[in-house]
Amino acid sequence: MRVTVLSGGIGGARFLSGLRRVLDPSDPITVIGNTGDDAWLFGLRVCPDLDTVMYTLGGGIDPDKGWGRDSESWRAKEELGAYGAGPVWFGLGDRDLGTHLARTHLLREGHPLSEVTRILCARWQPGVRLLPMTDEPVETHVEIDDPETGLRRWVHFQEYWVRLQGPVAHGVRFDGIEVATAGPGVLQAIVEADLVVVPPSNPVVSVGTILSVAGVADAIRTARAPVVGVSPIVSGAPVRGMADRLLPLVDVPVTAAGVGEHYGSRTRGGLLDGWLVDASDAGCVAELVSIGLPTRAVPLLMTDPAATDEIARAVLAMADAVGGR
Amino acid sequence: MRVTVLSGGIGGARFLSGLRRVLDPSDPITVIGNTGDDAWLFGLRVCPDLDTVMYTLGGGIDPDKGWGRDSESWRAKEELGAYGAGPVWFGLGDRDLGTHLARTHLLREGHPLSEVTRILCARWQPGVRLLPMTDEPVETHVEIDDPETGLRRWVHFQEYWVRLQGPVAHGVRFDGIEVATAGPGVLQAIVEADLVVVPPSNPVVSVGTILSVAGVADAIRTARAPVVGVSPIVSGAPVRGMADRLLPLVDVPVTAAGVGEHYGSRTRGGLLDGWLVDASDAGCVAELVSIGLPTRAVPLLMTDPAATDEIARAVLAMADAVGGR
Repeated sequence: MRVTVLSGGIGGARFLSGLRRVLDPSDPITVIGNTGDDAWLFGLRVCPDLDTVMYTLGGGIDPDKGWGRDSESWRAKEELGAYGAGPVWFGLGDRDLGTHLARTHLLREGHPLSEVTRILCARWQPGVRLLPMTDEPVETHVEIDDPETGLRRWVHFQEYWVRLQGPVAHGVRFDGIEVATAGPGVLQAIVEADLVVVPPSNPVVSVGTILSVAGVADAIRTARAPVVGVSPIVSGAPVRGMADRLLPLVDVPVTAAGVGEHYGSRTRGGLLDGWLVDASDAGCVAELVSIGLPTRAVPLLMTDPAATDEIARAVLAMADAVGGR
Repeated sequence: MRVTVLSGGIGGARFLSGLRRVLDPSDPITVIGNTGDDAWLFGLRVCPDLDTVMYTLGGGIDPDKGWGRDSESWRAKEELGAYGAGPVWFGLGDRDLGTHLARTHLLREGHPLSEVTRILCARWQPGVRLLPMTDEPVETHVEIDDPETGLRRWVHFQEYWVRLQGPVAHGVRFDGIEVATAGPGVLQAIVEADLVVVPPSNPVVSVGTILSVAGVADAIRTARAPVVGVSPIVSGAPVRGMADRLLPLVDVPVTAAGVGEHYGSRTRGGLLDGWLVDASDAGCVAELVSIGLPTRAVPLLMTDPAATDEIARAVLAMADAVGGR
């Protein structure tokens, strides 16, 4: 069985680790990774979501933080602070820097991001094929009230989230998305899949970014495989991250039902054939089923590998139940 | 007294530490630093000679190696090696990376190298004014027989020295030197100095590079201050470095007398008013004096701070003895 997953960072990566364990090793998994978080920092190209997937599945992740390298040190960053050089709010660990340096070197040599990602993954052997959603630069920006000046302005997503810790947002845009084309293999991975999964990643700035790449949403709407989603909202709040700050920007209630309706049923022009909500949100199942979206309530907190594996199994069971087109 | 010193890396930096201790703190020292060693590595601008001077005088140097940061770690570099990414032969320490990242960030913001160096030195407080010889990129290349292909080719000086460990050289050139102009304050520092010193740095790829910048050699030839040099060759060999490999390229014997003659006496169109050779080379003093170059033989091995201070004192004494123009 060929499975294709649209993934952001931590939530998607953890789900993928369960999926990889639950599936047979011979079942190929393709990950279409969000690159809207990517940024240039100190002349280095940083790809947080791609790296989180690569490190998590390759055994190099910091298991406590959920991002960055295990056994990390911060000596280069301390030096940057000693120089008073900005931006020092971004977590540039010494080991992580090795990845950014290697990636930037390859990009400067002329390799597209998809090829660079393949080369980096050759070391980590994540057990999935990790495809950037696009080789073109797309950078997510968020409109905020500047905490210092009070003036409304657009900031890079990394500044919004890491530096400013997710203040109230007035707008979100994906700079570069109009001219970005799907990366090599991305559309084909959706068309040829036996199952497409929307994991518990941010619907606006992770899945939403991937869906904004030309052709991706249409490929999902018309895919022959079942498309199953997992709610990132549990009991009216994101499990982690700042979806509660960003969902209102696209007029979506911060509820499992709201996100399910946002993605919509493929029978009615939407994206999903099935939707998983947390057991605590079981109350919305009937409502969603009534609008044509088969929904099941199962425990969705990825508290440990066993719980994560159960979610992956629930996705596979849902796919069996709903079938494709 | 205003002292201006033309400096390469380790030899110049160690001499400067002695000079700084020996002079009154109110006597300003200006260092014209070689930037021909500079390189782009993984998208970062690396300035080895400037950093060696800054770290040595600022108390951040690795005292054993003589270059790079004290208490250094190499985790980013280990990661680069794990990716199979090149070039990993260059010693990119984690702490040192902080300097390269800060510098590259400032350069990309549009600051010239002289301004960037001033900002970096604001942290280290080296006790000297450190001026890059030029703000324009100049990169030293050396012609070698490629050890893998046998073909003759030009390599960056860092590759020649750090990666290939100084093989036989067939040529040396300073790429960019034709269009490089002296950095802000460089010529003025020579014109206004009360003493100009050529420390025991490599005559070809350190001092030679600085002297190749338009206007520098002429400013030294016509300076009102005495110009005193210290031989980097002791007993027919460089104290450290690869001057023995490079001096033949400019037809200079690898001897203290040879380098003294190469720089030449200002009374005969050269650069020096006085020349210090090691006590072991005392046999050449009469010969050099006979061609118009006042020369003294004193211990020149900078084995410890006290010995280094004595060399600085010998330079000051020589300057007193020979006077300016």
